[in-house]
Amino acid sequence: MKYAVFGTGMVGTTIANKLIQNGHSVMMGSRSATNEKALAWVKSVGNNASSGTFSDAAKYADIVFNCTKGEVAMEVIGAAGVENLKGKILIDISNPLDFSKGMPPSLTVCNTDSVGEQIQRMLPETQVVKTLNTTSCLIMVNPSLLQGVHDLFISGNDAAAKERVSAILTKEFGWTTIIDLGDITTSRGTEMILPLWVRLYGAFKSSNFNFHIVR
Amino acid sequence: MKYAVFGTGMVGTTIANKLIQNGHSVMMGSRSATNEKALAWVKSVGNNASSGTFSDAAKYADIVFNCTKGEVAMEVIGAAGVENLKGKILIDISNPLDFSKGMPPSLTVCNTDSVGEQIQRMLPETQVVKTLNTTSCLIMVNPSLLQGVHDLFISGNDAAAKERVSAILTKEFGWTTIIDLGDITTSRGTEMILPLWVRLYGAFKSSNFNFHIVR
Repeated sequence: MKYAVFGTGMVGTTIANKLIQNGHSVMMGSRSATNEKALAWVKSVGNNASSGTFSDAAKYADIVFNCTKGEVAMEVIGAAGVENLKGKILIDISNPLDFSKGMPPSLTVCNTDSVGEQIQRMLPETQVVKTLNTTSCLIMVNPSLLQGVHDLFISGNDAAAKERVSAILTKEFGWTTIIDLGDITTSRGTEMILPLWVRLYGAFKSSNFNFHIVR
Repeated sequence: MKYAVFGTGMVGTTIANKLIQNGHSVMMGSRSATNEKALAWVKSVGNNASSGTFSDAAKYADIVFNCTKGEVAMEVIGAAGVENLKGKILIDISNPLDFSKGMPPSLTVCNTDSVGEQIQRMLPETQVVKTLNTTSCLIMVNPSLLQGVHDLFISGNDAAAKERVSAILTKEFGWTTIIDLGDITTSRGTEMILPLWVRLYGAFKSSNFNFHIVR
């Protein structure tokens, strides 16, 4: 399976490394084909790793992880190219955190819209699946870091795409409990959990936690 | 201890009943002293139960539970009277759900403000403590309905008031795990969890669930 990872930050690198470890080929996409972080990542990883523009990575991949910041997601998708993502699955991990007004961050979009929906509107022929955005990146790819049962949420319009992404989350990352919230508008709920996440991080002084829905 | 409960709906009635069961005196407050629901509640409960206007209830009580809808909270507090709530603890359970644009509800206030903060600004000499708003009313007063550990969040500017409310939540309602998120601005986080709560309710077809933070 050929994956693209949009974004060269901690989340993108963590996801990309895990996929490489699992034997997949990954192209890291960024604004420029000569992005230093992306080139350094390729050098550090070696085999199966490559880098390029968002557009290069979109063309290359079967499945795309969007690990950029929510506030630039539209710009990133525009650069990647609507045509290049047609018929593919895009897994959106981004959160629209706005740090420009100081701490704690607010959201650039919420309540009646979400980044997940914005991306799906921009890519009507791509299956956008929102998931992984409610926990820290180390837990994303290694849920057993935490003791006991804890949950992941998944949102998307296409049932088959959600099933395929759930299988990836289980097989590649080790997730066992994934709650299907419904269509892509349910991204509002998981993106709007971030203001609580940020305060829990403040209270615990650690990002080593996750949500579990007790029933 | 004399309690006031603002609101005659399911949440108000559930909280009021539990306090009465535990031997406390409760005045249920509403817009009018002749509110039929409040009068019916008093009749059904008998001893220790009374009803009156928001202002009557505010004057009467040592501690107030605000169980009205978030969208009318300001109006309710205005009717209760700033002076009548001076020096008292107000436990705010309300959520600013807006059903006017159809389902699922959005929030009337969020992101850079919250009902908890609005009430605290309106009542600078009252200790506003936000809690209980992230779970359904049956679980609020009987957390052991759910198996296993699950959590309550608490927000407020006054540490002593949060401690006193935590003691009430533990002693009267049975809560064992209460996470202090910080000052009243952290109400944004717990109120903004509602869009996820609503979608979980949709997915499970039951309100019999709660959040647990796994660490």
